[in-house]
Amino acid sequence: MTTGRLEAFSDGVFAVAITLLVLDIRPPADVRDGTELWRRLGDLWPHYAAYVVSFLVIGIVWVNHHAVLELIREVDRQFAFLNLLLLMSVALIPFATAVLADYLSSGGGPAHTAAAAYSAVISLMGVAFGGLWIYASRGGRLLVEGFPHDELPRITRRFVVGTPIYLTTIGVAFLSAGVCLGMHALLATYYALSRRGGGMARPAGLPR
Amino acid sequence: MTTGRLEAFSDGVFAVAITLLVLDIRPPADVRDGTELWRRLGDLWPHYAAYVVSFLVIGIVWVNHHAVLELIREVDRQFAFLNLLLLMSVALIPFATAVLADYLSSGGGPAHTAAAAYSAVISLMGVAFGGLWIYASRGGRLLVEGFPHDELPRITRRFVVGTPIYLTTIGVAFLSAGVCLGMHALLATYYALSRRGGGMARPAGLPR
Amino acid sequence: MTTGRLEAFSDGVFAVAITLLVLDIRPPADVRDGTELWRRLGDLWPHYAAYVVSFLVIGIVWVNHHAVLELIREVDRQFAFLNLLLLMSVALIPFATAVLADYLSSGGGPAHTAAAAYSAVISLMGVAFGGLWIYASRGGRLLVEGFPHDELPRITRRFVVGTPIYLTTIGVAFLSAGVCLGMHALLATYYALSRRGGGMARPAGLPR
Amino acid sequence: MTTGRLEAFSDGVFAVAITLLVLDIRPPADVRDGTELWRRLGDLWPHYAAYVVSFLVIGIVWVNHHAVLELIREVDRQFAFLNLLLLMSVALIPFATAVLADYLSSGGGPAHTAAAAYSAVISLMGVAFGGLWIYASRGGRLLVEGFPHDELPRITRRFVVGTPIYLTTIGVAFLSAGVCLGMHALLATYYALSRRGGGMARPAGLPR
Repeated sequence: MTTGRLEAFSDGVFAVAITLLVLDIRPPADVRDGTELWRRLGDLWPHYAAYVVSFLVIGIVWVNHHAVLELIREVDRQFAFLNLLLLMSVALIPFATAVLADYLSSGGGPAHTAAAAYSAVISLMGVAFGGLWIYASRGGRLLVEGFPHDELPRITRRFVVGTPIYLTTIGVAFLSAGVCLGMHALLATYYALSRRGGGMARPAGLPR
Repeated sequence: MTTGRLEAFSDGVFAVAITLLVLDIRPPADVRDGTELWRRLGDLWPHYAAYVVSFLVIGIVWVNHHAVLELIREVDRQFAFLNLLLLMSVALIPFATAVLADYLSSGGGPAHTAAAAYSAVISLMGVAFGGLWIYASRGGRLLVEGFPHDELPRITRRFVVGTPIYLTTIGVAFLSAGVCLGMHALLATYYALSRRGGGMARPAGLPR
Repeated sequence: MTTGRLEAFSDGVFAVAITLLVLDIRPPADVRDGTELWRRLGDLWPHYAAYVVSFLVIGIVWVNHHAVLELIREVDRQFAFLNLLLLMSVALIPFATAVLADYLSSGGGPAHTAAAAYSAVISLMGVAFGGLWIYASRGGRLLVEGFPHDELPRITRRFVVGTPIYLTTIGVAFLSAGVCLGMHALLATYYALSRRGGGMARPAGLPR
Repeated sequence: MTTGRLEAFSDGVFAVAITLLVLDIRPPADVRDGTELWRRLGDLWPHYAAYVVSFLVIGIVWVNHHAVLELIREVDRQFAFLNLLLLMSVALIPFATAVLADYLSSGGGPAHTAAAAYSAVISLMGVAFGGLWIYASRGGRLLVEGFPHDELPRITRRFVVGTPIYLTTIGVAFLSAGVCLGMHALLATYYALSRRGGGMARPAGLPR
């Protein structure tokens, strides 16, 4: 299988999952006056916050997924299976986001539990992503020709560094759900914009 | 990253968001006779109106997004991030549409609030779109080779002119929700059909 | 704009709309024993029937849409706008399907109304499709080079013949909702399989 | 019609259907403390299990669908229609999954019925897939040039072997819903990873 077909299918799943996030934000019902509607729309802030963070998280994974596929020359059976596991964890994020948004403002125990569950799903995705890369790159198994093998450790670090941090956020969730969500926001932004975190820089020695 | 991959993913988000609009139109429940069903289907007019306008709005942004990507030669990290913010605002439109449709026929305060919130989401999208273009074009940063730089001010005007008008509709919402929605409909149609508004005319001097 | 980009976006909308049809089939709730669940699943037959017919209808429009785009060389502003109107009517079909399925088995007046409303939405789609083709082909406006102009009347007939039949089904709905749905099923199957109805045969004289 | 366009549309339906699976997993409502939320999230295990299995099932069909399209040179009207029937059965899987998840933990009769209905939908998909392949390959009708005809029986066996096993799971459902679901999980994993089951190995003699 060429990488192109797998990429098109994966892009479809990423695009649907990221857009389904909005279905969790529901219009307030039974509002009688204008001021009350503003207040009720304002009360949805946990849903907006969770929406923004999950949108960034899925967006960044999409970018990194693309970066991985740029570096491999073909797809084998095991890679397609691991990719399916990754997509399975990505498609779970709208559910985890809905749980978090529902309980984020509850303050007490449910907020901690919801944030921990959210972080667990993101961690699962991180593990699946790392596993996909390690399978593809171990011994250069599926790497493109001309891949600069001395850069492999650096690139692997870039692709797996997220997972231990994501696991840490599970613990942070029990201290503060808000801080936990903030960490995910910061991580995603850092990954998106930093030269070190992101996945868009091709290794220098790689032929186009 | 090539523009092609980013375009395919963005197209996916646009297509899902525009099609999810229909989920807000729900069949009337517990209807006993045929005439009542006609009347109840007719009562859904705010949902049809909001559906049509939001469909046009997202459709036009899609066209303009395509026009921008035609004019740039490659995508960098910051552009991909700004594009994600644009998609985030586009994917919010089904929610804003549902709020507007729910309260459009209420007449009083909630209709004004809902229309203002709707206009605010559209404005957000306008700002994100303008920001994307300004980032890409400032100093010719990401523009294709052969881009006719003396046409840049004209093109920039074309891409950012929507935003101040969208912001105006927030104010109009407090006068009349219906007029506000009508303005969005007119704007979208004008953008779609006018040579000046739309995004499909390539600058004359640009090589194919 | 090339036809490719418009086709990709349209394909996305077709694919999402056709798959959203399933959301209208909801699992029976509060069932206590196995036989009751069989019966309750059986009671959903109007939903299955409407699902199958609408799936075929959208599928055939997708095939014909592809056929049109094969015959035109480029997309202008007006064509893109008309295409958006077509997609708008296609994306409404899941709503019309839900209304029909909810009232098909009611027997009396609501069934007739629901079937008429369903047929009206399909007719709208037929009109939008016909308009798209007539705009593109009138005077050869957007047709590919080498298009065999003496075949134009035959092809136009093929693309617009559905609309008067669809309009007829609105009337049939008031006689029998079931017959009306059956007609849509037959029409879609005929369009799909017949050499005369379908859109997949390229005019003989057309260069690949 | 080229295979490319049909493939793009089919990929869209596969991607949407597989991602819609998550909509069936709903956040627990009205939870008061953190421990209760953990327990309630745990109670959703039938939904997680059904999600994972259906995700694998749709993923494998996608892979096999791709494999079929690699082996055929063009698409005719009948093939497009059979493909639509296949997509119709695939898009039903989220519904069948929801029914199974709702009743899997009920233990008694409804669990058996739900598992049998689930298996029936998967079988339907198997039949549609087998029919698609047999139509395309019978007498080499649509096969690519250079297709090694002595390998045809082996490939056909590979593509149709799932169906009798799927039909068997309908019977198993009446013994145990859990074993039935487990069989689907095993089958999908086997199909995904085994050289014999999967669809990714091209016949040796086939030119790229």
